[in-house]
Amino acid sequence: MKSFVEYSGETDFPIENLPYGVFTSAKNVNKHIGVAIGEWILDLNIIAHLFDGPLMKDKQNVFKEENLNAFMGLTKPHWIEARETLQKLLDKSNPTIQNDKDLRERAFVKQSEAQMHVPADIGDYTDFYSSIHHATNVGIMFRGKDNALLDNWKYLPVGYHGRSSSIVISGTPITRPLGQTLPVEGAAPHFGPCRLMDFELEMAAFVGGPPTKLGERVTAQEAGDRIFGFVLMNDWSARDIQKWEYIPLGPFTAKNLGTTISPWIVTIEALRPFVTDNFPQEPEPFPYLKHDDKFNFDIKLEVDITPEKTPVATTVCRSNYRYMYWTVKQQLAQQTVTGCNLRPGDLLGSGTISGETSDSFGSMLELAWKGTKPIRLLNGEERKFIQDGDTVTLRGYCENEGVKIGFGKCEGKLLPAVPLE
Amino acid sequence: MKSFVEYSGETDFPIENLPYGVFTSAKNVNKHIGVAIGEWILDLNIIAHLFDGPLMKDKQNVFKEENLNAFMGLTKPHWIEARETLQKLLDKSNPTIQNDKDLRERAFVKQSEAQMHVPADIGDYTDFYSSIHHATNVGIMFRGKDNALLDNWKYLPVGYHGRSSSIVISGTPITRPLGQTLPVEGAAPHFGPCRLMDFELEMAAFVGGPPTKLGERVTAQEAGDRIFGFVLMNDWSARDIQKWEYIPLGPFTAKNLGTTISPWIVTIEALRPFVTDNFPQEPEPFPYLKHDDKFNFDIKLEVDITPEKTPVATTVCRSNYRYMYWTVKQQLAQQTVTGCNLRPGDLLGSGTISGETSDSFGSMLELAWKGTKPIRLLNGEERKFIQDGDTVTLRGYCENEGVKIGFGKCEGKLLPAVPLE
Ligand SMILES: [Ca+2]
Ligand SMILES: [Ca+2]
Ligand SMILES: [Mg+2]
Ligand SMILES: [Mg+2]
Ligand code: NI
Repeated sequence: MKSFVEYSGETDFPIENLPYGVFTSAKNVNKHIGVAIGEWILDLNIIAHLFDGPLMKDKQNVFKEENLNAFMGLTKPHWIEARETLQKLLDKSNPTIQNDKDLRERAFVKQSEAQMHVPADIGDYTDFYSSIHHATNVGIMFRGKDNALLDNWKYLPVGYHGRSSSIVISGTPITRPLGQTLPVEGAAPHFGPCRLMDFELEMAAFVGGPPTKLGERVTAQEAGDRIFGFVLMNDWSARDIQKWEYIPLGPFTAKNLGTTISPWIVTIEALRPFVTDNFPQEPEPFPYLKHDDKFNFDIKLEVDITPEKTPVATTVCRSNYRYMYWTVKQQLAQQTVTGCNLRPGDLLGSGTISGETSDSFGSMLELAWKGTKPIRLLNGEERKFIQDGDTVTLRGYCENEGVKIGFGKCEGKLLPAVPLE
Repeated sequence: MKSFVEYSGETDFPIENLPYGVFTSAKNVNKHIGVAIGEWILDLNIIAHLFDGPLMKDKQNVFKEENLNAFMGLTKPHWIEARETLQKLLDKSNPTIQNDKDLRERAFVKQSEAQMHVPADIGDYTDFYSSIHHATNVGIMFRGKDNALLDNWKYLPVGYHGRSSSIVISGTPITRPLGQTLPVEGAAPHFGPCRLMDFELEMAAFVGGPPTKLGERVTAQEAGDRIFGFVLMNDWSARDIQKWEYIPLGPFTAKNLGTTISPWIVTIEALRPFVTDNFPQEPEPFPYLKHDDKFNFDIKLEVDITPEKTPVATTVCRSNYRYMYWTVKQQLAQQTVTGCNLRPGDLLGSGTISGETSDSFGSMLELAWKGTKPIRLLNGEERKFIQDGDTVTLRGYCENEGVKIGFGKCEGKLLPAVPLE
């Protein structure tokens, strides 16, 4: 496959990728749906009429929307056909857009001249806790080696409902929060700026397919048709606030201060060549959590920290999505087992993705092991947690002989706390 | 105040109430906004042009919407003016609607001929845990009398983010969920129908005012302008599923199986005559949680259980919203303290509202004290938890010399579990 759009071999967005996003530009203040190719965005609002396949020809209007919910709300065969149409239209041999100068000029926007937006109206956002190395690390730190994994962890994908309003697009600054913490066990709590500000390296899946009804389950076996694609996600976490507030109902204000996602949704079809073995599961899961296909992906993940004053990026973590113990199909099955209804555009966070080695842990809490092993940055500074002015950048990509499928970046800068008036 | 609309002295909806809701009817399949008066609904879509006050005359379009989000997104002075306009238009002395036969016939719909809907697009739903008697009861049952209240409980309103997709309107049946439970401590978990299905008697507040920005706080002192009104809420809870899944991230599938709300939003202005002392708080809360006005309300609450076969309603609980330790202003301040942004239409659940006496507890867990003190129903049956076919009905009202402000009912029937295919 070769496109008439030229791009370098290093691009995250070759014709084999074609991730979906929502953008505005100086020329176009209304949100349009686009796909990334090389350094360009192909504006689907402008070329909606070219989706002439048997399924999409009556659904072209979904590309006139300001978000991806309507397209996500169609079915997997629609998504596959749309992808085939896009690959055909962008192919070197196809004249439709290539040779129509007027259309071509209207249909392509430089990514550098576009502003990206949260690509869907996220009705509900769920965050899981499905990396075994992460759960084990946290367990060892807080309960010791012998009780590291809690009793339920290997029986079900533990998760909780998060705050959808606070999901923001890459590039949005995050403010260090104020909140209650308990600096001295047994003493009175303290109110002030969070002192243990952390990132969490996660990926998140957008749910697709028509809405389900309350009371309806989606088993793991059925869940494949309902995963539209993935983005990178940084679940910013105020560790000291979380520790004081989370008993017994879970994380609340420690996580609703902002969750950053990358703008381009990489589809399952684009990821399919990078499918890999599921993590071995013992004990065997209950039937509703079982699926017989591979649904794990070899996605390399990295986290950089770039301080404000000497802006040199240090890669502090190299992990991989394949370390997930529970698949996203199992996560969706768990979420719906009691009858929770789904809407297209729902978001499922993977949970912090940590590998086995100490340089592959997906949070500062683990990387600096509760502050006991500070991370040295390339500019000579040390970090136990995130400092004011630090930019945290997540990157992800799949790679095999010659093809790279990238996620772009998921970035945010931490601004200093704003005192209470 | 006396309306030209006639109603009995027992009605929940006199001219002093005027709660907002969203309805459809045989005549009108599109969702319209209405207010309840006596046995009628006044259709605000039809009379939007009559809102001619200085603030609302340019905002009449909010009553042409299919939900209340746009109206909620205005400001408290708008809400107050709209209420004054409605009371004026409905007054016995006012001819505008009363004497216009055509308008009158189009503008009034019988409640018995209408179908009610969830009145807002609920962007995010939060549930709290703010009744001291409830938290103490649960604590005694699971941790003993000496450690009943957890350390953080009196320092902050404990809460968690819930599932907005699964919020349904009164009358919607709820299906007994399947899920994992741990019948024998230390043994393997079991998968099957929930055996400890419960209700939670709650009230829920709709958030109003323009959206806030991520990073912005709303202190308790500022929160008054952001509470639009209240509904009744039944937070259906699968106790055995909750117990197994909730460590360490809180309730998840035990609560996302359905949450029922009553259809009529009773505004803060209607509740104002029933304001009562805030619950005494010791220790003194942090400044962001303090407000100097009374924002607690004397709202009588009742729960009935009606079995399917011998359908006699038994009132199993008589409680009161006034038992809340934390006010809704404090709940909102807590939710936003780290910078969580708000959108009009957000919903805040109070948490289960239990009084001091054993007949005022707001859940079966407490009423039957973990199954040790079964409740006797009027038809001779006993209940430890909710059984298949039971209808659970919540009611709420305020009353003083001659005026009753009611909430209508919040009702749902529990259907039997649907086995896994
Ligand atoms: Ca997380
Ligand atoms: Ca509750
Ligand atoms: Mg977050
Ligand atoms: Mg619920
Ligand atoms: Ni929404």
